[in-house]
Amino acid sequence: MQIVIVLYDRVTALDAIGPYEVLSRMPGAEVVFAAVEAGTVRTDVGSLGLVADVALAAVPSPDVVLVPGGPGQMEQMEDGPLHAWLRAADATSTWTTSVCTGSLILAAAGLLRGRRATSHWLALEQLTGRGAEPAHERVVFDGKYVTAAGVSAGIDMALTLAGRIAGDEVAQTIQLGIEYDPQPPYAAGSAQSAPPHLVERLREASRFVLNG
Amino acid sequence: MQIVIVLYDRVTALDAIGPYEVLSRMPGAEVVFAAVEAGTVRTDVGSLGLVADVALAAVPSPDVVLVPGGPGQMEQMEDGPLHAWLRAADATSTWTTSVCTGSLILAAAGLLRGRRATSHWLALEQLTGRGAEPAHERVVFDGKYVTAAGVSAGIDMALTLAGRIAGDEVAQTIQLGIEYDPQPPYAAGSAQSAPPHLVERLREASRFVLNG
Repeated sequence: MQIVIVLYDRVTALDAIGPYEVLSRMPGAEVVFAAVEAGTVRTDVGSLGLVADVALAAVPSPDVVLVPGGPGQMEQMEDGPLHAWLRAADATSTWTTSVCTGSLILAAAGLLRGRRATSHWLALEQLTGRGAEPAHERVVFDGKYVTAAGVSAGIDMALTLAGRIAGDEVAQTIQLGIEYDPQPPYAAGSAQSAPPHLVERLREASRFVLNG
Repeated sequence: MQIVIVLYDRVTALDAIGPYEVLSRMPGAEVVFAAVEAGTVRTDVGSLGLVADVALAAVPSPDVVLVPGGPGQMEQMEDGPLHAWLRAADATSTWTTSVCTGSLILAAAGLLRGRRATSHWLALEQLTGRGAEPAHERVVFDGKYVTAAGVSAGIDMALTLAGRIAGDEVAQTIQLGIEYDPQPPYAAGSAQSAPPHLVERLREASRFVLNG
């Protein structure tokens, strides 16, 4: 089973690495990091280089497509080689998936029309303009389309998907292997649970980026 | 504030990327990925290349040292350039930290003598032989030494550390930004919660690796 994780400059690292850490542990899984051109991409904050080992053209028919999000998503919204690859790969994929604002790229490529989908909480409403139906949930399955909310939600999405692909026991064993027994030190992970003034402050700070 | 994340071959990606995603978002933080020699390392499963932009020698005095774990930890237990760098960096660090079996490397370098520390649940007892006191907790603070349990625990550790360094509101805003509102599809993330036969199966499968 081939899983292609799409990379591009200013991707959010955890969007890609959370699902990678889960899905790569399924028996028989081959995870390939690919970009329009092979080479190193840089993530959105600071100094992390992630290697896209191959060009997307070299992996035309993955079983699972995964598109992570991040600020660089905004440069991936126009039709072009990435969208063309996504449409072609989607035609034969078993699962087409995204994390965070990766769903906006899938939607821009025309793959989520009429589909329920999620995204980062600050970007969720943008799905509407692209023909998808925003669902305020952490992980959304609609047929073969699976979308996750912001950044860390990719871990929950991947475990759920691993269960569908390989069965509950495989997914549970992966969860145990990565000791995913989360104990966040704060209850601040959603706009509902975080202190309201912090939600408003982040919404304001993100307005320029998200509308850019 | 300079944060150095140490890379080596067969590191577990999420051990490094979880804390990176959190700590890099603190105002004023500079995260540097470094290895004994600069260049690309390959992670433990599948095909991910992570770039160590600089050699450890180029960053001798970070404020925060972070050592991730992974199967490659076993090749990092002998005294040598990494241990020498860790001891020197620790002499001036504000925080010396690890995720998963990274704590075994810190212990092997002599930095956890008499300290309470945690590690991956399958490796926890190995801390004893290196002079540390194993603590079956997800995140352990002992003075400036901060250790996290397996893989995904690095996210919880980093949020807790971000709170200590930059204050609760900064840490909560980061948690909200990465939408860390975990909803695992299974209750299988610890040896206490997972189905017992899966715990035993994973323990058996890991025995060779961990004792190797």
